[in-house]
Amino acid sequence: MRYGYFDDLHAEYVIERPDTPMSWINYLGTADYCGIISNHAAGYAFYRSAKTGRLLRFRFNSIPMDRPGRYIYIRDNTDGDYWSATWQPVGKSLDRYRTVCRHGMGYTRFTTEYADIKTDYRVFVPIDRPLELWEIEVENLSDRERDLSLFTYAEWCFWRMDQDLSNFQYILYTCRMGYEDGIIDYTLRWPGGEEDKGFMVSVLPVESFDTDREVFIGDYRHEGNPIAVERGSCACSIAIGGNACGALQNRFTLAPGEKKYALFIVGIGDARTVGRAMLERYRDRVKVEEDFARLGEYWRERLGKYRCVTPSPLVNTMVNVWNQYQCHTTFNWSRSASFNEAGGRDGLGYRDTNQDTLGVVHAIPHLVRNKLIDLLKGQLAEGYAMHSVQPLTWTQGPENVPPPEGIFSDDHLWLLLSVPAYIKETGDFAFLEERVPFADRDEATVYEHLRRALDFSWTKRGPHGLLLGLAADWNDCLNLTGKGESIWSSFLYHRALGEFVELAQRCGNEADARLYEERQREIKARLDEYAWDGEWFIRGYLDSGRKLGGRESEQAKIFINSQTWAVISGAADPEKGRLAMDSLWKYLATEHGVVKNWPAYRTTDTEIGAITSFPPGLKENAAIFCHTNTWAVIAECLLGRGDRAFALYLSFLPAAKNDRAELYTMEPYVYSQFITGKEHPYHFGRARNSWLTGTASWAFVAVSQYILGIRPDYDGLVIDPSIPPEWEGFEVTRVYRGKTFHIKVRNPKGVSRGVAELLVNGKILPGNLIPHGAMAAANEVEAVLG
Amino acid sequence: MRYGYFDDLHAEYVIERPDTPMSWINYLGTADYCGIISNHAAGYAFYRSAKTGRLLRFRFNSIPMDRPGRYIYIRDNTDGDYWSATWQPVGKSLDRYRTVCRHGMGYTRFTTEYADIKTDYRVFVPIDRPLELWEIEVENLSDRERDLSLFTYAEWCFWRMDQDLSNFQYILYTCRMGYEDGIIDYTLRWPGGEEDKGFMVSVLPVESFDTDREVFIGDYRHEGNPIAVERGSCACSIAIGGNACGALQNRFTLAPGEKKYALFIVGIGDARTVGRAMLERYRDRVKVEEDFARLGEYWRERLGKYRCVTPSPLVNTMVNVWNQYQCHTTFNWSRSASFNEAGGRDGLGYRDTNQDTLGVVHAIPHLVRNKLIDLLKGQLAEGYAMHSVQPLTWTQGPENVPPPEGIFSDDHLWLLLSVPAYIKETGDFAFLEERVPFADRDEATVYEHLRRALDFSWTKRGPHGLLLGLAADWNDCLNLTGKGESIWSSFLYHRALGEFVELAQRCGNEADARLYEERQREIKARLDEYAWDGEWFIRGYLDSGRKLGGRESEQAKIFINSQTWAVISGAADPEKGRLAMDSLWKYLATEHGVVKNWPAYRTTDTEIGAITSFPPGLKENAAIFCHTNTWAVIAECLLGRGDRAFALYLSFLPAAKNDRAELYTMEPYVYSQFITGKEHPYHFGRARNSWLTGTASWAFVAVSQYILGIRPDYDGLVIDPSIPPEWEGFEVTRVYRGKTFHIKVRNPKGVSRGVAELLVNGKILPGNLIPHGAMAAANEVEAVLG
Repeated sequence: MRYGYFDDLHAEYVIERPDTPMSWINYLGTADYCGIISNHAAGYAFYRSAKTGRLLRFRFNSIPMDRPGRYIYIRDNTDGDYWSATWQPVGKSLDRYRTVCRHGMGYTRFTTEYADIKTDYRVFVPIDRPLELWEIEVENLSDRERDLSLFTYAEWCFWRMDQDLSNFQYILYTCRMGYEDGIIDYTLRWPGGEEDKGFMVSVLPVESFDTDREVFIGDYRHEGNPIAVERGSCACSIAIGGNACGALQNRFTLAPGEKKYALFIVGIGDARTVGRAMLERYRDRVKVEEDFARLGEYWRERLGKYRCVTPSPLVNTMVNVWNQYQCHTTFNWSRSASFNEAGGRDGLGYRDTNQDTLGVVHAIPHLVRNKLIDLLKGQLAEGYAMHSVQPLTWTQGPENVPPPEGIFSDDHLWLLLSVPAYIKETGDFAFLEERVPFADRDEATVYEHLRRALDFSWTKRGPHGLLLGLAADWNDCLNLTGKGESIWSSFLYHRALGEFVELAQRCGNEADARLYEERQREIKARLDEYAWDGEWFIRGYLDSGRKLGGRESEQAKIFINSQTWAVISGAADPEKGRLAMDSLWKYLATEHGVVKNWPAYRTTDTEIGAITSFPPGLKENAAIFCHTNTWAVIAECLLGRGDRAFALYLSFLPAAKNDRAELYTMEPYVYSQFITGKEHPYHFGRARNSWLTGTASWAFVAVSQYILGIRPDYDGLVIDPSIPPEWEGFEVTRVYRGKTFHIKVRNPKGVSRGVAELLVNGKILPGNLIPHGAMAAANEVEAVLG
Repeated sequence: MRYGYFDDLHAEYVIERPDTPMSWINYLGTADYCGIISNHAAGYAFYRSAKTGRLLRFRFNSIPMDRPGRYIYIRDNTDGDYWSATWQPVGKSLDRYRTVCRHGMGYTRFTTEYADIKTDYRVFVPIDRPLELWEIEVENLSDRERDLSLFTYAEWCFWRMDQDLSNFQYILYTCRMGYEDGIIDYTLRWPGGEEDKGFMVSVLPVESFDTDREVFIGDYRHEGNPIAVERGSCACSIAIGGNACGALQNRFTLAPGEKKYALFIVGIGDARTVGRAMLERYRDRVKVEEDFARLGEYWRERLGKYRCVTPSPLVNTMVNVWNQYQCHTTFNWSRSASFNEAGGRDGLGYRDTNQDTLGVVHAIPHLVRNKLIDLLKGQLAEGYAMHSVQPLTWTQGPENVPPPEGIFSDDHLWLLLSVPAYIKETGDFAFLEERVPFADRDEATVYEHLRRALDFSWTKRGPHGLLLGLAADWNDCLNLTGKGESIWSSFLYHRALGEFVELAQRCGNEADARLYEERQREIKARLDEYAWDGEWFIRGYLDSGRKLGGRESEQAKIFINSQTWAVISGAADPEKGRLAMDSLWKYLATEHGVVKNWPAYRTTDTEIGAITSFPPGLKENAAIFCHTNTWAVIAECLLGRGDRAFALYLSFLPAAKNDRAELYTMEPYVYSQFITGKEHPYHFGRARNSWLTGTASWAFVAVSQYILGIRPDYDGLVIDPSIPPEWEGFEVTRVYRGKTFHIKVRNPKGVSRGVAELLVNGKILPGNLIPHGAMAAANEVEAVLG
């Protein structure tokens, strides 16, 4: 069953059936203002921080689902019938109500027909203003004059979401609404805080308004049948205390065939100054169109740095539009706000944000550089990192030192992937010499930051010489106590050491290169001795000495991450790497992706951690955690097994679920955090927690740098595809260090991997690297596999 | 407009119109299990702690209001029509749906008629088991056989409310529901936590069930139209992750005139053991009736210790039933959970709980004694108190020391009212010698605890020799900075010193008596010098030296608390006390009660505090804060102005608002925290935040000990009424130290105050005190005013 399709021409996902099994959402806003909007126009908005800057309210996990939002009601004043410009909240019968929702790049648009009235409702946030524009065009398709009203509706949120959710004896006595000249003024006061303000504006004349939620909705009613809309006019209520809403009525007649354009603006700022100025500005529809065009330009520019044409439409859609769009969304909003992340966890997750940079560094290296500095400022002088950094309020000091039980095994090590990725992309070696403060005290060069990260981990090794698990490794729910060691962290460490050695060499720091190479050899020796289990790599050692994820384990005999990272880290012997990935394929891979571990935990084990508390097949316990699946793709590419890499890629690709949406349930256009695993008794194949996942960046890395194989490196651009042998070729257009590359890959012999011929601007080059010296401003590249 | 009436015979409030302007709620449970239930059966339940033991979920401040709860749907399987045993959530048209809700003592009952089917639905919590019983009797009033189904519905809550409200990426993956033999098993697992469990049982055979909320309700539906009820059967869903619900279907036919009794049980414990045992126990309806009878006995016993018959039915209803019931509710549940208190603030508010004891000490002195010990354990060795104490998890230690900015001016001083009140009621002087630990270190006698409270305040005096305001005084929103001083705290301190002096004398500690008497004189001298403003007492001095609440103040020229406590404290000269209360009457009293200050603050003043941030007429800023109104009543009684005392008492009495419920909006049977003040532009007279307010205990003290004037004291029972002169008399029955007093007061001369004749068991006594020596086991008392 499908609910929609990809419109690649317009970079839209088009939802034709509104009754999706879950809310399918989109993100509006690119700078300080973020709006989240579902296919029913539900959702919230915040300014700068989802935690402390919440402007529009949303009821999470509620019944009815998906309320409230940015509603526009249409009322026929002749017969009193009313509906909404989106199917919900009024929810008219779908045999008389036709609607299409288009989620685009930074905007969402709803076209609807009901009762011979057509509406075209579009919401977007300009790239440089903290406000959202609600445009609606209403057309009379009938042959008689129509007397119509429009009613907007949104709920204002107390700015601090934790207060808004629970402190009703307080928040309900803070608002002081106002109304003047078509502008609703949302003001509240709190002790000691700045006076935050919001506004809602109508460009057409206002017939009536409400600012008190209970007055607009009415007792024992809901957004589906508000009393004001039923009655045909608002009550001009001014909320002083209570729940604040914004509701504005326009009223007009339409001759047969006539169209009317209405515009409403919701934003941050003082109603009398900013609200009035915005009303003046956007009275001119040309300004709206200009801002919409600039938004399109913004996204075209960002997404245009890497484009492909492959035999797989799914790959083309995801790579060119949705996967990159999701990467920018996670990067912009730091994974803090969605319909399942309520926004209470603010700031930058340390490992999350490091990884999020990988998916956008080719497009916005300058912004990645800033973000890396934010992250480096979250590193302690001892080398480990704060698990979460708050750049908006960061100041150096001992208060940033986490308690010992709050130190993670891997957080700081991700810097050894994100910083090198930035330098490979840009060549900006000077960045390594930039001095950046630590979170608690002192400052040092970026290079020194990286070194301290490695030195910290060197001091945190356990009885087998492998890295201690500490609070957790990448898997938040593996909480190995005491002397518990993480094989996975040790693989990451091996890779991190390798990255540093290469940097040290390139910086001419030979002594460093030798020292950390020695450490890398030592870690590899420990891994060789203690990590292999015969058919696969184990996941760690518990405090008691028991193996985690080995043949003799009673539960969770095999884990995904130690197989994939054995290969990715470069630590595994090639034969063991292949065997390990074969075991992954045999025990963990399913039609919906690779489960995290098998068999699922069924009893709690406090030596292992929270993973053992989840039901089998959910979250960390034997679900298909999509983030980890991307590493399986990369590992198979590194092994040169492009067919298997692509099969794994497709298995968890959301676009591949489009026609099984009743099972998958979440958005087919973006990755979810996990897909329910095979050991769940009911929901194998059902996705949950969409949008805010490290899957986005790693999936983009996997497909763009490993399957398609266009990979930036210090010395140039590497062309190293690992594709299904049946692909006859593909094309990629990529910007690299300001130069353009149009790359045609041909595969006449039906192989998976191996560049046999490389032509750059008509010249044959050896190997598969385009060195800087061979690059022009614009480059035509042809690579033949074989 | 009225929605219901008081049925004093059954101690019930009867709601005849279900569409009340707000949720009108009741509390179920007397020990570890608390349920809150509205007049639509909405509400939640928790075990021990509203914060960490939440069993049933409720959506606060939501649209639709008042959901979910303890729903029972009735479906006619012949025509598919369905409704609920309470008006909401299905909300049938009120011209065809007749319903009455009766809130009683620890139970709520709904009788409903629709489609010739009558249902009688009663919910209660037995006094000694952590579970609730949902009984329903269904009667066929028609002349044809009816094929009916019942469906129960409740949502299980993740135990920790803060997680349940916001951490969806976690809580939705924890539940593991089960079903067996008519019993739904609510189990979830979390790392490191005990496995908490709940169950739902049907005594009648189960036709179908659901445990997955989304399956029962259906997408884009709500509690008003669940798909399972519409379809006529549940889907036997087992939620493993997701939102857990409990839904059980019974199905039966009823011949004309036939009745059927069904029972459902929701409770805490393992389904297979506790659930099964409860099913076995309550299969026998006699057990249900026994438990209901014991519940009635519990409340009759508690409320029966003080009963009155006065010329005012309002007084009789409130004193004999609702005011006392509210006092026990605030005492039992520590003001932590209601429909506007979401339950996130757990434990005992220090000053709140001290005051809450005053309203119940006559009925349950042994429980008050335990609570006082809990409070004394929250006092620091230095004498001040933790602002909130957590008896469930209390352990002594330095972690209990609040930061300096968390020390309040008054918290600890309330011990000087609560402990003496307990001893006056019981004569238990030995309590003063009991050794109790402090919160941080050491232990001492209760007497020493009291002394340290006084000594701490002595060190916290400001430039005028008056008590510093510290974080706040009783008014949480008066946050006087730096050297700011609170006149009100100084009055309280004067009273507290007086109470201690009397205790010291009675304990033979003459040196103490002299020392603290000297301090009391010193405080009185400072108050005489600095507190009087000509017509009234000011409220304090700000850090800058400005007066707070004086003639020259730009805003808030006069406050209620300094007038009332000038009298209550005994510190004011009688003439100034009268003048002050006259000013209160002139500037602050309104038809809906006495506002807290006048004029309201309209601009923020950080030297004064949060009070200046609320809109005029709401909360602390010029609202009718009911708690403070009780003190006005007491002060007028102390001045002997019974007519004015009674007028003030009536002005904010909820029962007196019964016929103006459309304005008052909250429950007419219990006090609310505040009534909107006269300076609010729209809602003067509208109440908010019902049930959990110190108003309950102090209103009971005011009416029972001051208006009716039956007041326990060390040497006996004082008879000192201050009544409206037109009252010809009244009667009170009261238990005091295990003895019964039937007191008839006659007022032949139409005075307000002054006992002219006192007969006890036929003997004339001098004055107005019944000394212990004159008391029999049962006493007939006659007092004649004049």
